[in-house]
Amino acid sequence: MSEASSSSTLALRVRDEWNQLSKEERLSEFRVLAHEDALDLFLGLDAHDAAELLEQMTANEQRLWIRMLAPDDAADVLQCTTDARQALLESTEPATRNEVIALMAYKEDEAGGLMSPRYARVRPEMTVAEAISYIRLQAIEQAEIIYYIYVLDTDQHLLGAVSLRDLFAAHSTKHVREIMQTELSKAHENMDQEALADLFAEEDLIAIPVVDANDRMMGIVTVDDIVDVVEEEATEDIQKMGGTEALDTPYLRSSLRSMIKKRAGWLTILFLGEMMTATAMGYYQNEIARAVVLALFLPLIISSGGNAGSQASTLVIRAMALGEVRLSDFWRVIRRELASGLFLGLILGSIGFCRVFIWEMLFHSYGAHYLVLALTVGISLVFVVLWGSLSGAFLPFILKGLRFDPASASTPFVATLVDVTGLVIYFTVASIILRGTLL
Amino acid sequence: MSEASSSSTLALRVRDEWNQLSKEERLSEFRVLAHEDALDLFLGLDAHDAAELLEQMTANEQRLWIRMLAPDDAADVLQCTTDARQALLESTEPATRNEVIALMAYKEDEAGGLMSPRYARVRPEMTVAEAISYIRLQAIEQAEIIYYIYVLDTDQHLLGAVSLRDLFAAHSTKHVREIMQTELSKAHENMDQEALADLFAEEDLIAIPVVDANDRMMGIVTVDDIVDVVEEEATEDIQKMGGTEALDTPYLRSSLRSMIKKRAGWLTILFLGEMMTATAMGYYQNEIARAVVLALFLPLIISSGGNAGSQASTLVIRAMALGEVRLSDFWRVIRRELASGLFLGLILGSIGFCRVFIWEMLFHSYGAHYLVLALTVGISLVFVVLWGSLSGAFLPFILKGLRFDPASASTPFVATLVDVTGLVIYFTVASIILRGTLL
Repeated sequence: MSEASSSSTLALRVRDEWNQLSKEERLSEFRVLAHEDALDLFLGLDAHDAAELLEQMTANEQRLWIRMLAPDDAADVLQCTTDARQALLESTEPATRNEVIALMAYKEDEAGGLMSPRYARVRPEMTVAEAISYIRLQAIEQAEIIYYIYVLDTDQHLLGAVSLRDLFAAHSTKHVREIMQTELSKAHENMDQEALADLFAEEDLIAIPVVDANDRMMGIVTVDDIVDVVEEEATEDIQKMGGTEALDTPYLRSSLRSMIKKRAGWLTILFLGEMMTATAMGYYQNEIARAVVLALFLPLIISSGGNAGSQASTLVIRAMALGEVRLSDFWRVIRRELASGLFLGLILGSIGFCRVFIWEMLFHSYGAHYLVLALTVGISLVFVVLWGSLSGAFLPFILKGLRFDPASASTPFVATLVDVTGLVIYFTVASIILRGTLL
Repeated sequence: MSEASSSSTLALRVRDEWNQLSKEERLSEFRVLAHEDALDLFLGLDAHDAAELLEQMTANEQRLWIRMLAPDDAADVLQCTTDARQALLESTEPATRNEVIALMAYKEDEAGGLMSPRYARVRPEMTVAEAISYIRLQAIEQAEIIYYIYVLDTDQHLLGAVSLRDLFAAHSTKHVREIMQTELSKAHENMDQEALADLFAEEDLIAIPVVDANDRMMGIVTVDDIVDVVEEEATEDIQKMGGTEALDTPYLRSSLRSMIKKRAGWLTILFLGEMMTATAMGYYQNEIARAVVLALFLPLIISSGGNAGSQASTLVIRAMALGEVRLSDFWRVIRRELASGLFLGLILGSIGFCRVFIWEMLFHSYGAHYLVLALTVGISLVFVVLWGSLSGAFLPFILKGLRFDPASASTPFVATLVDVTGLVIYFTVASIILRGTLL
C-alpha cells in the first residue's frame, strides 16, 4: 500500500522509463534511489518485475527487500522466481515464512492465491468495547487495512462478520455475537479468480473471506486485487478474440520465441481452414474462366460477411463474459441477429448494387450484362452478411455449450468460416442469376 | 453494500431471471418479494435497471425506494431517468437532496460522477483520542465504510489523510497533524474515469479523495466502483476492436435500432474500403483471365495477411490500453513485428507451397507450371503475412498519435487494409514469377 509518495524527480524518471530498461539497468537505477523512493517503486512493481529485480540482488539486499512485502505479495513474487526461490524464502522473516509457504501452495489464479492471511478477527463472546481494543491491538501489529472484522470460534470457523462502522455504532456492552452478520458471501480457497471477480461485482464488497472445505477461515481477498484480475481476464479474452493464445506476459516483455509460438498455432489453424476457399473455388473454376468479372467482387463479398460476423461474435462473447447473455438466451440472440443481419445485409447489398451500376455508367466496366451482375452482387451481399451475423452469434454458443472458452470464437476464426461459406453462397447466387447471360 | 443476503428461493429465482423479464414483469415480481429480499435486489441493480423500475412505481413506492440509495447511487440512478427525474428528486430525503443535485452535475464517467460525499473527516488539531471518538460519531450517522480518514481545515481544504490503522496505533495524546500523511494521491473532480482507474491500479489504493481546483475536498471514489469502470472500459475496447461502435447498453437490452445504427456505420466504412479490392482487381483482370488458377488462392493469401494483422493490432492495442506500450515504444514494436511477421510468414509460406505441390501430386490440379505457382503462393504469403503484422502494429500507433482511440484499429479494419494491399502484393509477385510461363 504505497499510500503516499513523496517521489523525487529521479524516482519519477526511473518509474517512467522502467519498461524501457534492461534487467541490469533496472538494478543499477534502483540502487541509486533514496530508500523512500526505492521502497515506493518496489512496492508498485508487479510480481514478475519484483522477482527479476530480487534475483539479481546480493543476499543482503534480498533480505532487506523481501521483508518489505506482505506475505501474500511475497508468495506471488516467489512464485515468479526460478533459481533464487529457496534463498529468497530463507531471507523472509522467520515469523511469516510459514504463511508465505502456505500461500505458495495455491495457484496464482484461485482465491487462495489472491488472499492475504492478515485480517482483523474477534471472538463472538467479546463485548463491543473488548472487540474495539482487541482490533486496535491487531492494527498496531499488522500492516493491512481493516475492512470488515471476522468473527471466529476457537477452531477458526467463520461465524460471521461485523463492519467497523457497526462496531463503532453499537453500544459498548453489547456482545459481538448480537451485532454480527451471519449470512456472508464467502469464497472457497480453490474458487477460480474469474468467479471471484463476478462475486465481487455482484455484491459490491470490499473484501471477501476465503474458507476451506470445513468453513475454516483462511484469509481475505480484497477488491483492489480484483481490479487486476478483471484487467487480466479482459486481456486474455481480447487476445483470444484477436486470434492468438493469451500471452500471459506483457507484449514487450514476452520473448520473441514465445510470442511466435502463441501466434503460429492459431494462424496455422486458420490458414488450414482458409485453404478450403482454394478447394471450393476449384469447383467454380469454369465459372470464373467464363466470367472473370465474378472474381473481382469475391474479396468484397466474403470479407463483408466476415466483418458482420466479427461484430456479432464480439458482441455475444463480451456479453457472455459479463454474464449478460447465457446459453438459455440462444433463441433471443439468434432472433436479434436475424433481424440485424438482414437489415445490415440490405444496406450493404444496396450499396453493392449501386457500385456496379454507377461504375458501369461512368467507366463501362462490366459490359452488357451489368444489371444481372449488379443483382448478383447485391443479393449475395444480403445473404452473406445475414449468414455472417448468424454464424458469428452462433459460434460462441457452440463453444460455450461444449465448455470451451467462447472467446476462442475469434474475429479471424469467424471470418475464415464465413469466407468459405460466403464463397459458396456467392457462386450459388451467381450460377442461378447469371445462367444464360454471363454463365 | 449488500453485505449479507438471506435470500429466499423466490428472491434467487427473480434475480436469476431478471434479464429475461420485461419492464412490467420486473415490477410485479419485485412487488411480491419480502422487503429484505427486495432491498437486496434493488441495491444490486445497476443504475439503468433501478431507474427503469423506479419510473414505473407509484409515488409512494418511489419515495420509499429512492431513499434506500446512497447519494452517489441516487445521483447515478436519476441520471438514467427521463420523465420521472423531477418527481424522483423531490422524493429524496430533504437532507441529502442537495448532495444528490451536486453529484448530478458531474458527468457519469468522471471522478465527480463516481464519488461519494460521505467520508470520514477530522481536524488536524484534534488529538488521536478526540479523532477516534469523532469518527465513531460519523460512523453512526453515515452509511459508508471508513477507509481512510481525511484531515480538512475549516475551509474544507484537504491537508492530509490518516488510516484507521495509524490512528489506532498512535498514542492517544498525539495530534492528528503529527501522524497524518500529507503527500496524497488525489483526483481532480473532472478527471476521466479511465485515468482514475489507472491511478488506482498504480497506487493500489482502496479510496482516492476527489478535490476541486482549489484543493477543496469534494468526496471519495472507492475501488469497488473502479472494478465496474475497468469492466466498462474493457467492454468498450473489445466492441471497438470487433468493428462496431461501443454499445453502451447490454447486448440484449439495446434496441434493435440502436444496435443496427452502431454496426452499420463501421460496416459501411469497411465495405467502402474493401471496394478498393474490386477496383484493384480490375487492373489484374487480364492476368486472372490468362491464369484463373491465380484467383483460387486469392482469398487464402489475403485473409492470412488479415489474420496476422489482427493478431498484431490486438496485442498492440491491449498493451497500449494497459500502459505497457507507449508512443515512444514504436520502433521496439516494429522490430518485434518485423521478426515475428517474417517468421510467421515463412511458416505459412512453406505450408502454402506444400499445399500446391501436394495437390498437384495427388490430383494434378494445376498443370505443368505448378512449381512456379507454388513458388508464387509461398513467396506472396511471406510478404503478405509480414506486411499484415507490420500494418496491424503500425495502425494503433497512428491512431494514438492522432489522438484517436487506438482500439478503433479494429480487426476488420486491419483486415480490410491488408486485403487491398495484400492483393497488390500477390499479383505483383505473380507477374514477376509467372511472366513467361502462366502469364
